[in-house]
Amino acid sequence: MKQSLLFVPTLRDAPQDAEVRSHKLMSRAGIVKMVAAGIYTYLPLGYRVIKNIEKIIREELDAIGCSELLMPALQPRDLWEESGRWDKYGPELMRLQDRKERDFCLGPTHEEIITQAVRDYLNSYKKLPLALYQIQTKFRDEMRPRFGLMRGREFIMKDAYSFHETDAELEEWYKKFADAYTKIFLRCGLETRIVASDVGQIGGSEADEFMVMSEVGEDTITYCMSCSYAANQEHSGLQEGDPCPVCGGTIREAKGIEVGNIFKLGTKYSESMNAKVINKDGQQVPVVMGCYGIGISRTLMASVEQHATDEGILWPDEIAPFQVHVIPVNAKDETQWILANAIHDNLKAKGIDVLIDDREERAGVKFKDADLIGIRRRVIVGKLAKENKVEYIDRQSGVKNIIMGDQILDAVGL
Amino acid sequence: MKQSLLFVPTLRDAPQDAEVRSHKLMSRAGIVKMVAAGIYTYLPLGYRVIKNIEKIIREELDAIGCSELLMPALQPRDLWEESGRWDKYGPELMRLQDRKERDFCLGPTHEEIITQAVRDYLNSYKKLPLALYQIQTKFRDEMRPRFGLMRGREFIMKDAYSFHETDAELEEWYKKFADAYTKIFLRCGLETRIVASDVGQIGGSEADEFMVMSEVGEDTITYCMSCSYAANQEHSGLQEGDPCPVCGGTIREAKGIEVGNIFKLGTKYSESMNAKVINKDGQQVPVVMGCYGIGISRTLMASVEQHATDEGILWPDEIAPFQVHVIPVNAKDETQWILANAIHDNLKAKGIDVLIDDREERAGVKFKDADLIGIRRRVIVGKLAKENKVEYIDRQSGVKNIIMGDQILDAVGL
Repeated sequence: MKQSLLFVPTLRDAPQDAEVRSHKLMSRAGIVKMVAAGIYTYLPLGYRVIKNIEKIIREELDAIGCSELLMPALQPRDLWEESGRWDKYGPELMRLQDRKERDFCLGPTHEEIITQAVRDYLNSYKKLPLALYQIQTKFRDEMRPRFGLMRGREFIMKDAYSFHETDAELEEWYKKFADAYTKIFLRCGLETRIVASDVGQIGGSEADEFMVMSEVGEDTITYCMSCSYAANQEHSGLQEGDPCPVCGGTIREAKGIEVGNIFKLGTKYSESMNAKVINKDGQQVPVVMGCYGIGISRTLMASVEQHATDEGILWPDEIAPFQVHVIPVNAKDETQWILANAIHDNLKAKGIDVLIDDREERAGVKFKDADLIGIRRRVIVGKLAKENKVEYIDRQSGVKNIIMGDQILDAVGL
Repeated sequence: MKQSLLFVPTLRDAPQDAEVRSHKLMSRAGIVKMVAAGIYTYLPLGYRVIKNIEKIIREELDAIGCSELLMPALQPRDLWEESGRWDKYGPELMRLQDRKERDFCLGPTHEEIITQAVRDYLNSYKKLPLALYQIQTKFRDEMRPRFGLMRGREFIMKDAYSFHETDAELEEWYKKFADAYTKIFLRCGLETRIVASDVGQIGGSEADEFMVMSEVGEDTITYCMSCSYAANQEHSGLQEGDPCPVCGGTIREAKGIEVGNIFKLGTKYSESMNAKVINKDGQQVPVVMGCYGIGISRTLMASVEQHATDEGILWPDEIAPFQVHVIPVNAKDETQWILANAIHDNLKAKGIDVLIDDREERAGVKFKDADLIGIRRRVIVGKLAKENKVEYIDRQSGVKNIIMGDQILDAVGL
């Protein structure tokens, strides 16, 4: 892809409201652009990363037997009255009226809509288990939107819902999802820790969060030095130095970014919204439910936070917007341009995502932008082009080599 | 994929509010489910078709040099004040306030947001042309939502915006988009006709619509019997039998479904919102813009309308939710099940999207559902399974054959 057509509006300085490194870099590297507080446009480079994260999520959820659908953002009040959440949900719920003055909200989650979608269909245990997910835009009117994509008012989420005959089956699927989540985050370049948490506005009996350890997270995690106990501080109520409730060891505190959460909803929604099945014993019982979220825009941000210096990003392989960045030092030099273009075309023909900096900019500007943008494998086509040689840099290992143009495919190792 | 996990809630009868064949079939075949008037959930089968349409759009737009991004649904009033549309747009614009009583709307189109995204970046003609698109959820509070996905209040659109130094360059890109649109719709199994139309709430100097000819369309097209003149009746003001304004021939009327539209915006938004570049002559001039929409949910509906009988759908190849449907007549019969499963696995290993009806339902129920769902290639695994034989049906040609299980790959011809 030609960089001139991609639209990457890099900035010398970060906007004044950018508080944390990831937000500063994402603004400077042309990843996102703010539209209003907590509301962003994902620019082409950022949206390529979002789509890569979505692809990983789809692969891992399809692998455990989930099926994808898409529910609406506009949700009618009557369904929220059924679940009882219309009155209980606070001012984070964005509400509006249509032209006939009927009440709607913009969905922060979709328990009501998914229950409405399945309840007429689910009549027997034979149709269970069932697990459905969507990748969709969510809305939450945060009191104080901040930290870029970390606490936004409009954001991209994957939310999944599972339906079961028994608590034991929910338990089994809860574990399946937890394992899939660990894989998903690892593929996104993130090591996560599972911590116990409150159920909050979602409800249910039990919940866990997937945390990326980070200095800029909004959540404090309390964990034990001696055993595997870990919980969100809001949930544990513990402080640094307190005794561990499991083993008596010493509790420590740490700041984390929540990228996923999983809930055992039990029958909260199926009872209030009348989603029932005939079980194996011939009795009509409410369906047992679980729900499972991943903050996709947050995952993007957490990844930048983990994989960057102040100079720029270094994307993990699987979510990188491009795999190779080809930079002709002087795009007006015909020898350089022809070689750079040939390398671009050859890599592209092999199915490799490759970006070529075709802009008529000074070399310094191009290199600075390339550092910001953060593609791991860089091919610099400069004065050695007349000998058919280029410089190849793997920014992950730091190794630089002068190689022949036709050795690039071997060098990138893709 | 196992049909039991896919979630395909087929219905014997269409909902009472379904007026047209496509809406009836889409409800009965488990393609969509209504949440509120004009607001739908895309069930897994329908969402697979949507994703296939999106893939085609991405391929054709990337091929002409467009770049994808994602803009927010929530749009702040101040940007709409800049363009002057906040006061001009009618009650179709869904408006809401956040918790601090600041005004927002839910975007029906994104001219303001895209102009805000590019205006700081576009400073010179050297950065033009530029063409950006998104696939995103749109909102329009229709007075009378009807015909299922045809006139919805929340719908999926592809909207693109192009930026140019001169009118001549816009003209060139307008034609590029028109050609890409014709290809996109053909790949979706739709023949379209380009007709002149009004610019409406979008504005600009000139617009054309892409129409699928259909009995259930909401638009009336006036066209000439003798020359290529064609226009939306709202635009032409002509009636059946009137003389053609171009050649004097006879005007005829026909009902069409609008699936796409393209607009020459000119400088309407760039002037009011101050998006200017230095041109080749060193003068600062407003950028010349075009915008280009495709109704993705409408395209899905138009395709069902064109490719169905009252018994069920017959999906065009490129957008079909699955390419092959394998149906063991009796899933409890071990011989049938083993052969059906082997065929499923073999096809899947070749990268073919294959659905297997693993449900413990009567054969009649399975066949009726299969007719509704509408996958072109069907493999029936019945009593002949013990001789390793199956029935293969190509529903497009109507040809049925008894073949050996290991000849399936040749038979499907994929």
